[in-house]
Amino acid sequence: MNAPSRVRKASADFRWDEVELLAYKPEGSAPFRDITRQVLFTGEGLACELRYFEIGAGGHSTLERHEHAHAVMVLRGRGACLVGDAVRALAERDLVTIPAFAWHQFRASEGGPLGFLCMVNAERDRPQLPTEADLAALRRDPKLAAFIRV
Amino acid sequence: MNAPSRVRKASADFRWDEVELLAYKPEGSAPFRDITRQVLFTGEGLACELRYFEIGAGGHSTLERHEHAHAVMVLRGRGACLVGDAVRALAERDLVTIPAFAWHQFRASEGGPLGFLCMVNAERDRPQLPTEADLAALRRDPKLAAFIRV
Repeated sequence: MNAPSRVRKASADFRWDEVELLAYKPEGSAPFRDITRQVLFTGEGLACELRYFEIGAGGHSTLERHEHAHAVMVLRGRGACLVGDAVRALAERDLVTIPAFAWHQFRASEGGPLGFLCMVNAERDRPQLPTEADLAALRRDPKLAAFIRV
Repeated sequence: MNAPSRVRKASADFRWDEVELLAYKPEGSAPFRDITRQVLFTGEGLACELRYFEIGAGGHSTLERHEHAHAVMVLRGRGACLVGDAVRALAERDLVTIPAFAWHQFRASEGGPLGFLCMVNAERDRPQLPTEADLAALRRDPKLAAFIRV
């Protein structure tokens, strides 16, 4: 990858100069609905990457867990997240910490997109999907059962 | 430091639950004017930190350089930055990459604050201030000479 320009201007609708709009994950690799991914910062000797994800109205990320932590800031819209054993509402600029091996899933509101920054170690392990036993355990809590999309 | 809550809500005026408002640097340690610092994410096995800096109207950060890179996103207001040999205007959500050893300085507009996220390696070298010879070299460019505050 070429080095980015030192200043990359934001354009309307949460896009940026020189930043490609990517698929969240390869289609069919995991359950998700209506998400895009933009890698804002990578390389340059930085030990982390900063990505921007946007979930369309009513869409959701994959329910997954992994050893590496996520550091999230909401940039746009409203939604909710499952982290560990709780579901929390999210609004602009809220911060979400996803510790090692915590199950997590993000959802956009029905009314509009949820966009968020996610800082993550450049070197990281691959996500794990829940087994049927994991899902059964999570669903023992009615709030989690109502939230989860797989 | 205790682990942060998994969701920390944003409050008015670019503050966050459980996030302390800090001085930018120790007073007198380097030239700067009217800046605060908030550490949004640190620890949790993350190889980087994510900080939020806010420069008051007309204020400026320190002119400095270092080996570690900065990855910056403007969150609030307008201003400008010097990176390397150029001065660029900044507006909301613009991205700034500060490569290794590039001189850099941020300024807020006269009309209001400039707030920005800055991602940085947790392990990093200390900033270097310009010598008189460095300043003379930078000031050979009239645009830089007009911008620099020391």
